[in-house]
Amino acid sequence: MSSTRFLTGITTSGTPHLGNYVGSIRPSVRASLRADVESFYFLADYHALIKIDEPARIQRSTLEIAASWLAAGLDPERVVFYRQSDVPEIPELTWLLTCVIGKGVLNRAHAYKAAVDKNTAAGIDPESDVSAGLFMYPVLMGADILMFNAHKVPVGRDQVQHIEMARDMAHSFNHRYGDHFVPPEAEIEDNVATLPGLDGRKMSKSYDNTIPLFAPRAQLKKLIASIVTDSRAPGEPKDTEGSALFQIYQAFATPEESSTLRQAYADGIAWSDAKQIVFERIDDEIAPLREVYQALLDDPARIESILRAGAAKARHIATPFMGRLRQAVGLRDLRTQSSKAAKSVKSALPVFKQYRENDGQFYFKLLDTDGRLLLQSTGFASPKVAGQTIATLQTQGASALNELKDQLQWGLDVQTQDIDTALQALLDAKTK
Amino acid sequence: MSSTRFLTGITTSGTPHLGNYVGSIRPSVRASLRADVESFYFLADYHALIKIDEPARIQRSTLEIAASWLAAGLDPERVVFYRQSDVPEIPELTWLLTCVIGKGVLNRAHAYKAAVDKNTAAGIDPESDVSAGLFMYPVLMGADILMFNAHKVPVGRDQVQHIEMARDMAHSFNHRYGDHFVPPEAEIEDNVATLPGLDGRKMSKSYDNTIPLFAPRAQLKKLIASIVTDSRAPGEPKDTEGSALFQIYQAFATPEESSTLRQAYADGIAWSDAKQIVFERIDDEIAPLREVYQALLDDPARIESILRAGAAKARHIATPFMGRLRQAVGLRDLRTQSSKAAKSVKSALPVFKQYRENDGQFYFKLLDTDGRLLLQSTGFASPKVAGQTIATLQTQGASALNELKDQLQWGLDVQTQDIDTALQALLDAKTK
Repeated sequence: MSSTRFLTGITTSGTPHLGNYVGSIRPSVRASLRADVESFYFLADYHALIKIDEPARIQRSTLEIAASWLAAGLDPERVVFYRQSDVPEIPELTWLLTCVIGKGVLNRAHAYKAAVDKNTAAGIDPESDVSAGLFMYPVLMGADILMFNAHKVPVGRDQVQHIEMARDMAHSFNHRYGDHFVPPEAEIEDNVATLPGLDGRKMSKSYDNTIPLFAPRAQLKKLIASIVTDSRAPGEPKDTEGSALFQIYQAFATPEESSTLRQAYADGIAWSDAKQIVFERIDDEIAPLREVYQALLDDPARIESILRAGAAKARHIATPFMGRLRQAVGLRDLRTQSSKAAKSVKSALPVFKQYRENDGQFYFKLLDTDGRLLLQSTGFASPKVAGQTIATLQTQGASALNELKDQLQWGLDVQTQDIDTALQALLDAKTK
Repeated sequence: MSSTRFLTGITTSGTPHLGNYVGSIRPSVRASLRADVESFYFLADYHALIKIDEPARIQRSTLEIAASWLAAGLDPERVVFYRQSDVPEIPELTWLLTCVIGKGVLNRAHAYKAAVDKNTAAGIDPESDVSAGLFMYPVLMGADILMFNAHKVPVGRDQVQHIEMARDMAHSFNHRYGDHFVPPEAEIEDNVATLPGLDGRKMSKSYDNTIPLFAPRAQLKKLIASIVTDSRAPGEPKDTEGSALFQIYQAFATPEESSTLRQAYADGIAWSDAKQIVFERIDDEIAPLREVYQALLDDPARIESILRAGAAKARHIATPFMGRLRQAVGLRDLRTQSSKAAKSVKSALPVFKQYRENDGQFYFKLLDTDGRLLLQSTGFASPKVAGQTIATLQTQGASALNELKDQLQWGLDVQTQDIDTALQALLDAKTK
């Protein structure tokens, strides 16, 4: 397919609120309708396990988030909408990626570092209460992305580093095993609408200032009435600047409606009247969705079946791809190889591979036609010297091995004769 | 089943040698014949990926190791003999365990620390060339063990720490989610026969001094002829003490045969004659197995089918167990829960749980009947004070919350009324 693949995960750790709707759900659902994109949305329940050890909460959140996205108009026929834990290829890929990423890279992950810094500031063991799950989270996220070779991952600035790590894993795997992964790109969402919460700070579960997206009408009204305002009396002109109430209204209203309320502020509308206007406007948009949401919540079997159908679509991609990745790393059906079979693939040539490691030095290795390591160089300060050393081997063959012995390590169980044969094969191919 | 479960993994990274045979394969095959044990043997190919990025080598090693164990008499009907990567539940369990183990615990793993120490000593970045795979290896090993609730894991002293970590993961998971895992025990093999290699040091791939277990007869003879000896001439009495040749012989000979060779040493047997005796004795034992081995290597389809049958047996245990674990952590079929269903399980009571954390302090939490966290205490220096605080809550109910507010944290989205209801339910149950 030539369309661009987008991928978005939602951690199943809570109940969606109005801030999630405005900042993520509504724009994502709109984006999913574009014809030139292929969208993947998944309920990140393996991620939820990092933070939440309350099973009922994870299950409930999965139900509520799935119902919210569907109620908001996500079309499961049009996108791939699945639950992460329904795709066993994802934890398997997590392990394969774990083996190709440097542990040092993970030490630098923001979320992990923040936890350590917080502990250090509190004067306790830096790793206190830091689970291996928090530490390994970027690798699971890498598997989420690379499993579907997503090109674009819409993220906030704080998540860009995770995408860079996924790129790192893709490069590292491709380098070792051939080109299998598309290095993904972060699509940075600088213009994400953030909604203020009841207390005026950003609406967020951690501030306990949220308005649940599908709160019943009466509760919605009560919550909006509790949004913090200043104490100006009815008749006094009011500022829209810094008014959480006004900002929330703007996220739902047309520009014309916003102008009208701005004028009413200037004209000294009573806070209670302004709140009534905001409540009605939000409820206008939410009420029809709330009805769908409630119907979905009352029919968990329908959500379960939608998610399973989504998982089948996801695995239609993941299962054969994982098969290729397993083949690439050597987790293979033994019938595909025998001493005879190994001999019959001698048509290809041995190969020198040059590359750069994290230490900044340049290396090369010589692989035989089965991909077995014959020679591994030590690090060179420049790619030129590495190249010259390869040239020496290519022109002088095994007779150069003694002279170069300080720069070379033999592969395990490799005999000088194997190297000789490989170099001779390369020489023969050149002179033909 | 009431029999004891033993579990042994063999990393698929090389070709078995005589040292593996004497130290591991031969005694394991014998142990597997005991009637009171249930034995699990697996080809640890996910582990191999940590060290080996040569696909052909991993595949070849899998074939050779499987053929070696079968040739040595392992009965796949009697034991569960499988390839790790055929059991997708293992990487999934690896993730679940990743979320319950502290990252700080893994920092202390010997293999990881050894790699860091080596880098530090070399004056390079401590994490240089240390993959996340090396760091996470104990968690994968924990999953290997806990997946089958193995009671006993035969290991060398250097591996005891890994078993302790698996116990740690079992306890930590059980504490959060109820009793699911049997904490495994290390069965320390202090008496493992270690065989000297060609140069007299321990036979090991890393010393490049091995004798391949199923080397052809001619090669076996040549290799034994190359075992290092002193330079005493024929006719001179020779020491058995410190003689690698004699030690190797002992691993195959009966005590009587060993006595005879000891006498021949004293009588001044020529090294070449002694080597001929050793070669013939080893070949006597190995030759029939070598024939089976060769037949198996020539029939990879048969090995593949044996391993698949083994995986089916393993998954017969792993799949339903993983289903229970998923249920326990909250990765659930949504149909099993609805608002109605949630209400109908109110027969059980809320519960206080007391426990001790790694920081040495004592904690408690209050969970509602769905397992939702209502209250979490801060750490107490003594279990007594923790217990008294619980008692205060039990007797005074929600009215004590204000007084205790510095020792308590609310669960997410929890209302005071939820706590009140829970405490009241406990009180009612007591006074009935």
